Amino acid sequence: MTDIESVQKYIEEHQERFQRELVELLQIPSVSTEPSCKEEVARAASWVADNLRKAGLEVEVVETEGHPIVHGWWSGAPGQPTALVYGHYDVQPPEPLEDWVSGPFEPTVRDGNLYARGATDDKGQMFTHMKSVEAWIQATGSLPINLHLVIEGEEEIGSPHLPAFLESRRADLTCDCAVVSDTAQFAPGMPAITYGLKGLTFYEVTLTGPQRDLHSGVYGGAVGNPANNLARILADLLDEEGRIQIPGFYDDCRPLADWEREQFAALPFDEDGFREYVGMDALFGEEGFSTLERKWARPTCDINGLTAGYQGEGAKTIVPSKATGKVSFRLVPDQDPEAIAAAFCRFVEERVRPGVRCEIDSHTGCRAVLVPVDSAYCQAAVRAIEQGFGTPPVFIREGGSIPIVESFKSILEVDTLLLGWGQNDDNLHSPNEKFSLADFEKGTRTSAHLWQELARRE
Amino acid sequence: MTDIESVQKYIEEHQERFQRELVELLQIPSVSTEPSCKEEVARAASWVADNLRKAGLEVEVVETEGHPIVHGWWSGAPGQPTALVYGHYDVQPPEPLEDWVSGPFEPTVRDGNLYARGATDDKGQMFTHMKSVEAWIQATGSLPINLHLVIEGEEEIGSPHLPAFLESRRADLTCDCAVVSDTAQFAPGMPAITYGLKGLTFYEVTLTGPQRDLHSGVYGGAVGNPANNLARILADLLDEEGRIQIPGFYDDCRPLADWEREQFAALPFDEDGFREYVGMDALFGEEGFSTLERKWARPTCDINGLTAGYQGEGAKTIVPSKATGKVSFRLVPDQDPEAIAAAFCRFVEERVRPGVRCEIDSHTGCRAVLVPVDSAYCQAAVRAIEQGFGTPPVFIREGGSIPIVESFKSILEVDTLLLGWGQNDDNLHSPNEKFSLADFEKGTRTSAHLWQELARRE
Repeated sequence: MTDIESVQKYIEEHQERFQRELVELLQIPSVSTEPSCKEEVARAASWVADNLRKAGLEVEVVETEGHPIVHGWWSGAPGQPTALVYGHYDVQPPEPLEDWVSGPFEPTVRDGNLYARGATDDKGQMFTHMKSVEAWIQATGSLPINLHLVIEGEEEIGSPHLPAFLESRRADLTCDCAVVSDTAQFAPGMPAITYGLKGLTFYEVTLTGPQRDLHSGVYGGAVGNPANNLARILADLLDEEGRIQIPGFYDDCRPLADWEREQFAALPFDEDGFREYVGMDALFGEEGFSTLERKWARPTCDINGLTAGYQGEGAKTIVPSKATGKVSFRLVPDQDPEAIAAAFCRFVEERVRPGVRCEIDSHTGCRAVLVPVDSAYCQAAVRAIEQGFGTPPVFIREGGSIPIVESFKSILEVDTLLLGWGQNDDNLHSPNEKFSLADFEKGTRTSAHLWQELARRE
Repeated sequence: MTDIESVQKYIEEHQERFQRELVELLQIPSVSTEPSCKEEVARAASWVADNLRKAGLEVEVVETEGHPIVHGWWSGAPGQPTALVYGHYDVQPPEPLEDWVSGPFEPTVRDGNLYARGATDDKGQMFTHMKSVEAWIQATGSLPINLHLVIEGEEEIGSPHLPAFLESRRADLTCDCAVVSDTAQFAPGMPAITYGLKGLTFYEVTLTGPQRDLHSGVYGGAVGNPANNLARILADLLDEEGRIQIPGFYDDCRPLADWEREQFAALPFDEDGFREYVGMDALFGEEGFSTLERKWARPTCDINGLTAGYQGEGAKTIVPSKATGKVSFRLVPDQDPEAIAAAFCRFVEERVRPGVRCEIDSHTGCRAVLVPVDSAYCQAAVRAIEQGFGTPPVFIREGGSIPIVESFKSILEVDTLLLGWGQNDDNLHSPNEKFSLADFEKGTRTSAHLWQELARRE
């Protein structure tokens, strides 16, 4: 029996215990944003640390000013590459509780799915890596590569202490690639490698007109109305074909490669299902691009919030003193959030009317990420998935942003393999979050293959 | 001594008592919008009715489903014209209380002004007519014309029961003109006749996109964002020169007459003071018109409120499910609110993007009013003001709308004389509302002259 055969046999034989352990972890309400859960969050960290120790890793629980970071490592493969697995043991708040079929912290199996808060995001997915590591060490006495596992407790609150942790341990954490399982497959039975993420930059534009709300009969038409002005500014950002109108906005956009457009077009994307899911009778977006291209690979501009004047029932005919718009842009590779911010501010300021004052609260956010799909690491992941899921992965991109991926690039200088075992309907951040037990096992098997494939990367 | 001399002597001799009585009325917190004040509102109605009875009028307190209407009348001048005086004994809420120097219902004299909620709007102003009536009847035994006083208690909540009252008593209330003192002089020592009011029409536009807020990374750019769409629709309503862009909007607008533009230009309007009062470093409005022309005689379009998506602190990068804009138009004479409403709805609907649903809550409001300044009634008012204030009035218009004036026109078929004794800085609807005691006396004297001048109208 080869090493990998022993490892896969171990995974098969211990699958039920793995599930029982996952249930135990899911029972801990480690809601990082909720101060009253602080002890439970710490309990989850200890549980993860103990589990990694039992698996055979060296482990340190690193305290931060917030919740602890669990760092486990194996350095017994000198000369072999090093991977850094990132995951998080904290979860989103479970509310609204009344919408859960079974309690968010009472993990329950229905139809082959395990329902609980954190089932897919991210306890269940990161646990696949913890168990593959155990399987290797317990079944063969070692791992084929060196490994860091960095499991944090603050992902759901924006990872405020993780970059400093990476900075301060940059030398210890030297590695060849990062691995994150916190995304989804393209569809059931269609595992995916997410090789692109969008960047993000967002703004709050506040226009102030009169020093208090004014009677629109007595003053209307004679003073600049900040809400009228805001509508103009925000409307000008996009034309009727969904193209962003800020000068130079598209200059640095990396266009979609032919193979990407072909690959996206070949995916069995259910446009009607998508439309029904969002509850609209038609879709709308940038002319000349498909829905998947718009979602994954074209920059976008969305007003996220508007606040001005009277918001109660009925009418109050005023010229509001103030109008605020929140607006965000999703960026594609090679766009520089700082250059976009400068161009955005110029665009807004040029449209401010006489007498209106403008303040822009600007957040540069993060750059887009594009992982080279032909790298040895990515190809190793392709082979691992092919063996673990019995089918090769599709390459997809994602419209969302995962800032920590950019930190791995900028601080540790490595690319991240985004290997998602979840499904698009796993209800992450919503009631009835779930994770397929079949995907849990396939993810664990794939993870075990991955360490071997990274060792024999070509 | 002529009748009018006796009347003016009576006013002079009883001025202190008149002020004491006004203080009594101002002490009653008759806040019509506040359910807990219902008894106080009724007490104010009784107080007004008693006061009119003592003056020598016949009085009826007419109950409505809301607050009562006090109707006093004198019909002892057969063959003479009949005037209908309208006023209101209800007041705005006094909040914020902490900004009042003296309590809103503890009338206090400072620097010749009486400070209290309702001092100018409208208890103090309407009381001038109640006292001139008393002076005529008590000093001479009669009034030179027939008179109705209709003093309601629901003006500050939109006069919901007044039109039905006018309709049901249309025959009893037959009259030649209406008189309302609920506006302001142009400036201290510059009494004014307000001969024009703007009309009003307002809308709530609600755009619905996805059936719930969506992640702007996962869905942004692929679905119509109702907030982006709302910004476009509302921005398109006006161009950068302040001209309304709805097709046909200006077709029926009555242009300013040459004498009006000349008269407005000759008024000592303090543009810098106005600018400082609104707290802006520049003004903005329709190209080609002065500030007074914009305020008084040009149609306007103001966004009164915006509500969409995330309104809390910081960022929440969503495609909001819904976006709502409240928008109102002030109309000038000859514009038809119903035609404007139809054109507005068309304009909005043409701009709704694929998949977005649009609902428009439409309020036709009221038409603009323009009183002929050369009518016998208006000329009688000019002479009365000349005698009461010692200076002829200026003719001004007003950007606000007083729907009840349109009711007098449509139901009773009479024009309304808007004879304001207040000042622009009287803080109506705001803390520290006031009314000049000198204006209170001059208003009372003018009112006494008015009944005589209406009797000898030419």
